[in-house]
Amino acid sequence: MRMAELSSTTGVPVATVKYYLREGLLHPGERTSPNQARYDDSHVRRLRLVRALLDVGGLSISAVKNVLAAVDAPETSVHDVLGVTQHGLPLARADAVDVQARAWAQARVEELLDQRGWGCDPALVESLVGLLATLHTLGHADIASVLDAYADAAQVVAEADLGHVAALPNTESIVEGAVVGTVIGDALLVTLRRMAHTAVSARLFAEPEGREGVSRPESG
Amino acid sequence: MRMAELSSTTGVPVATVKYYLREGLLHPGERTSPNQARYDDSHVRRLRLVRALLDVGGLSISAVKNVLAAVDAPETSVHDVLGVTQHGLPLARADAVDVQARAWAQARVEELLDQRGWGCDPALVESLVGLLATLHTLGHADIASVLDAYADAAQVVAEADLGHVAALPNTESIVEGAVVGTVIGDALLVTLRRMAHTAVSARLFAEPEGREGVSRPESG
Repeated sequence: MRMAELSSTTGVPVATVKYYLREGLLHPGERTSPNQARYDDSHVRRLRLVRALLDVGGLSISAVKNVLAAVDAPETSVHDVLGVTQHGLPLARADAVDVQARAWAQARVEELLDQRGWGCDPALVESLVGLLATLHTLGHADIASVLDAYADAAQVVAEADLGHVAALPNTESIVEGAVVGTVIGDALLVTLRRMAHTAVSARLFAEPEGREGVSRPESG
Repeated sequence: MRMAELSSTTGVPVATVKYYLREGLLHPGERTSPNQARYDDSHVRRLRLVRALLDVGGLSISAVKNVLAAVDAPETSVHDVLGVTQHGLPLARADAVDVQARAWAQARVEELLDQRGWGCDPALVESLVGLLATLHTLGHADIASVLDAYADAAQVVAEADLGHVAALPNTESIVEGAVVGTVIGDALLVTLRRMAHTAVSARLFAEPEGREGVSRPESG
């Protein structure tokens, strides 16, 4: 297909496709004349992956480049690609917390990793320490009491993710599946958590008729 | 305390504190002279909350304003504030997907909501439909098979979250706890999911010595 068709199939504007080609996010098409090239399904597929990483995953152009380099490297293992995806993905940063909060957070995280036998990337550990320290600084250190429920949930999801990925037919699709699953899976999990909040909150807090004191403005 | 001390206690630069005051993200201090005001612990606390919403939650200034207005409204219920937090928080958007993918995603989401008895905000439903449609478009529709594991995990976390929040001593702290928990909880869950991935992946995919074909570059 021509550039125009590649653009209309994927919904990505021609100028943007050209930009991705220049940046090396998309492999060149087969040149058919000095000014034209032919593109195929591999371009459609790659373009969709790039958009998902940028839009849903919130990755920067240079992070997408790193992730794609890992996807394309012939001897990349799934374990590696997960590592690369994790480096490319923005993790919440939480700075400027006081020393006491950090020490408290560090101890909680070490406890958790010990109990679960998780040996982790220092960047992940740092992110978790920062988040817990922020909770401490905000006066919500007691949220640490639900940390185990979070870790249990994370484990359930990770087992499902990796089980799914391991069942894919070949290394190429496993690696791409790991990237897609990591990025879109985050967004899925966050969205489903909100849905579950709404449902659980309606059960616990929504007012039966006639109860007062915490009235809901939109119903009053 | 003076502005300078408020700044050093929270690590927020004076110019930024002034900006938040102008934008109404921070309530004014008690004026002690035409050019000076006195601040107290309520300012420290609010400033930390604002920073967490902006930095960890990735909210815009105007989204933070809406969330804080809900926190401060005297008759806001926890159920309401969860709603407001959810509106304020950026949800992953996934546009430009084809009609067939959307129809497929819509059916999966309706099935899920039916099974769980979840009645949800249209914005959440739209976000979930968009994410599943993106998976379909990327050729990973089979990830929908792990959707139940995700929903189970979300339910576990939501029960823990709301149980924790319900145990807080008064409506004010409940509402603030809900905001903090929603924003920082997302980041916690995503970070823990990555940690669990690393652990599960090491078990499933990391190579015992001598196995070949999916070698790990850094060990070779």
